[in-house]
Amino acid sequence: MRAAIFNGPGAVEAGERPDPVIQEPTDATVRVVLGCVCGSDLWYYRGESPHAAGSIGHEFIGVVEQVGTGVDNVRMGDLVIAPFIYSDMTCPHCLNGSTISCPAGGNFGNGVIDGGQGEAVRVPQAGGTLVPVPGSGHPDAVLKSLLALSDVMSTGHHATVMAGVKHGDTVAVVGDGAVGLCAVLAARRLGADRIIALSRHPDRQKIARDFGATDIVEARGEEADQAVLDLTGGIGADAALECVGTAQSIATAAAITRPGSVIGIVGVPHGQVPFTETFFRNIGWRGGPAPARIYIPELLGDVLNETIDPGRVFDYETDLDHIADAYQAMDERRAVKPLVRIGAL
Amino acid sequence: MRAAIFNGPGAVEAGERPDPVIQEPTDATVRVVLGCVCGSDLWYYRGESPHAAGSIGHEFIGVVEQVGTGVDNVRMGDLVIAPFIYSDMTCPHCLNGSTISCPAGGNFGNGVIDGGQGEAVRVPQAGGTLVPVPGSGHPDAVLKSLLALSDVMSTGHHATVMAGVKHGDTVAVVGDGAVGLCAVLAARRLGADRIIALSRHPDRQKIARDFGATDIVEARGEEADQAVLDLTGGIGADAALECVGTAQSIATAAAITRPGSVIGIVGVPHGQVPFTETFFRNIGWRGGPAPARIYIPELLGDVLNETIDPGRVFDYETDLDHIADAYQAMDERRAVKPLVRIGAL
Repeated sequence: MRAAIFNGPGAVEAGERPDPVIQEPTDATVRVVLGCVCGSDLWYYRGESPHAAGSIGHEFIGVVEQVGTGVDNVRMGDLVIAPFIYSDMTCPHCLNGSTISCPAGGNFGNGVIDGGQGEAVRVPQAGGTLVPVPGSGHPDAVLKSLLALSDVMSTGHHATVMAGVKHGDTVAVVGDGAVGLCAVLAARRLGADRIIALSRHPDRQKIARDFGATDIVEARGEEADQAVLDLTGGIGADAALECVGTAQSIATAAAITRPGSVIGIVGVPHGQVPFTETFFRNIGWRGGPAPARIYIPELLGDVLNETIDPGRVFDYETDLDHIADAYQAMDERRAVKPLVRIGAL
Repeated sequence: MRAAIFNGPGAVEAGERPDPVIQEPTDATVRVVLGCVCGSDLWYYRGESPHAAGSIGHEFIGVVEQVGTGVDNVRMGDLVIAPFIYSDMTCPHCLNGSTISCPAGGNFGNGVIDGGQGEAVRVPQAGGTLVPVPGSGHPDAVLKSLLALSDVMSTGHHATVMAGVKHGDTVAVVGDGAVGLCAVLAARRLGADRIIALSRHPDRQKIARDFGATDIVEARGEEADQAVLDLTGGIGADAALECVGTAQSIATAAAITRPGSVIGIVGVPHGQVPFTETFFRNIGWRGGPAPARIYIPELLGDVLNETIDPGRVFDYETDLDHIADAYQAMDERRAVKPLVRIGAL
């Protein structure tokens, strides 16, 4: 089969991989329809984090091709969403909502399991992992939004859940990447009254506004802190959603949230969280990799009835043959999030 | 009046202070009945944190002596509990439960306002701050428990609230000081099914067991981590309550809590919270100085009907004339928490 192959930093291109086959009774194989490139794939591309040579990608939707004898939740021919981590959904951690910590779970594109940027993937723990999509004949825009549930929209939603966003809240979103934009959408979905998006890119500001942002703050650093305080009568936001993970964005989140609140943090922290400082204002920090498998069933209905359209974050499209262009476009910030069209439905 | 006077590290003794008088319409003066020494007073005593020379102490119950013209919540003769921070209860932060961040609020014993280890205190924002105790003729044990609401019991309760302790939970409490013991009691009060107290002192273990601890772990460091994991089938506690604040106790809390949980932290962090490590297990950190004023009304009923008896943490008693002995006993760990009997009811 054809698949994106990671050959080292700066070198991702289409190549050949063996067709995946069922290896365990709990496996399924999925023929990929849509995949995409994630901000975290960029770390590997930029050489900032290690990645095994070979298959890459961890977000995809597709059609089930084969199922192992121990899989009973999905059937051949089902259109399915793969959360970015596979998990069994039967262990104490999965049953407690922490699919990320499933001992039987793991990452796609990890050097053993194929990644989602390829024509097919063997999915371990398929019955626990894959979420079938009801209905058929879904429009392309809906398919793109279903793909977004695989990671970015679930991650944006996770930020809101971790921060305890509730109806009527004022929410500040730090980060205007695909996750930050989805966090805006997730906050609106949960009934936030006012959503302040910190963004300096006009194209992203537009999506943020369409997703529900009521205010845009273009400033950075202390100027941004002041702007959010001014917008909130000096009090700060009821919840800050940290969707970047740099030292500056972490500091901004700490500065703009009100005493007693919780910062929902989904950007992998590359800077130290200033916990001792925020402690004296009773500000908590909560987050991590999203348990997408837990959230997808809840978000799926809103995608299917077109209440939410997170697929709008895909502002660049390509195919496997041009996968290198997708990485380059994202690396150069010409794309918020590249979609990769891989197979027919 | 007589009051404990802080003359510098290692030097606290009884001395004379001017009788407090009403200075603002929002003031009241309170004649102190019971005061006590806090773990945080020890920082000043040990020279680890600065403290203004003069009056000291921030936990007390007493009888209202005078009220300003703008005070309508309390009356002369009321028995009242003073939370360890005064606050107006009308600002956006107080109304949001963050009395600690009240712009009109502040600390007792701060060099301007008298402390609670003295015969009388001027209480600013008295209508917001003081909580009247209904009834009369309360037994001495109840009075001691009312005093505990001023800080330690509210702080132990805060740890449970921050960690989201709920009915049926397994809770691990790191720290067997007065706050840790109160956290055990608070966890039991909220319906925790299993309470693991980390304690190596037999006298404190006894109080912990009486307060509801079902298991005691005497080990420290990695041995303690393993012991808690063994007790929880390898999963970890549903909530860890960090009631110390040292690097080691913070690391222990991080190691013994299950993925997806929240560590309630009320020990002032003297070590860095290992946020990046816990991020990948979706473990949150939440806490700070307790908004005692918010909790006292809720906890008061349980003290008055003797459902909870946090006053048991006072295992040492003295009076103002012997205040130096109380500091010394606490410094040498001969006392968990010294009670100071100051005035008649």
